[in-house]
Amino acid sequence: MLDPLDDVHFMKKALQEAEAAYEKNEVPVGAVIVVAGRIIARAHNLTELLNDVTAHAEMQAITAASNFLGGKYLNECTLYVTLEPCQMCAGALYWSQIGRIVYGAVDEQRGCTTMGTKLHPKTEMIGGVLEEECGGLIKRFFIEKRNLN
Amino acid sequence: MLDPLDDVHFMKKALQEAEAAYEKNEVPVGAVIVVAGRIIARAHNLTELLNDVTAHAEMQAITAASNFLGGKYLNECTLYVTLEPCQMCAGALYWSQIGRIVYGAVDEQRGCTTMGTKLHPKTEMIGGVLEEECGGLIKRFFIEKRNLN
Repeated sequence: MLDPLDDVHFMKKALQEAEAAYEKNEVPVGAVIVVAGRIIARAHNLTELLNDVTAHAEMQAITAASNFLGGKYLNECTLYVTLEPCQMCAGALYWSQIGRIVYGAVDEQRGCTTMGTKLHPKTEMIGGVLEEECGGLIKRFFIEKRNLN
Repeated sequence: MLDPLDDVHFMKKALQEAEAAYEKNEVPVGAVIVVAGRIIARAHNLTELLNDVTAHAEMQAITAASNFLGGKYLNECTLYVTLEPCQMCAGALYWSQIGRIVYGAVDEQRGCTTMGTKLHPKTEMIGGVLEEECGGLIKRFFIEKRNLN
């Protein structure tokens, strides 16, 4: 049984990762991957620090989870991510056949729903968990960025 | 000026990478990234060896090229890849704002054209360069795989 309280619990962990990104002056997006109630991967966006567009939180979390499990398929796993995945990350999640994706804030401009990215038929996706906190952190980041320039 | 002979020249280099993947029992896809007539990144698919769905040739090449250039945007670069990019790789290429994508064989099932992945407005894409050689290697790989099982 899926307990909605679990979703909130794990999204808070993803939000902690997003806060770590914020502290590093990265667009604050965080992710965790959970299997059987246990976090097996944690990551946050590092595209600026690494100078690498592929260093989204989800991408690093997929690599870390696969490494932990010793296999590249994540059928039994749930990804919690503070922002709706982009085309790249949704495309990676497609290949991983992940069981479930739970995201916080909607990305109306570049999220996988708007962009029409296909998920794997085995993957369920829901959004809006701790939406206000997840989206609020990103808004705060961009407001502060603008004020500095 | 774009010289079509250059495209063939660099696709041959991508094909060498695909052959290296083949030797490692990986789906044989290879890529190089070129700027001002010079190869700055070479990579081949390593998803099986690394147990990681994100280890496509293009993803590794993007990371390597960004590392070489010291910046995450690849506006001046051309990616040569032996197979049409998937959603994930096209999504990464979108973020990189790469100038040009040249691919060999079409991927009718999971290529970015079929999947409807959006490229960056600054990116041009052409396909069909050394299509027969690029596609032939992949076909040979899957025929041999089937015969072994």
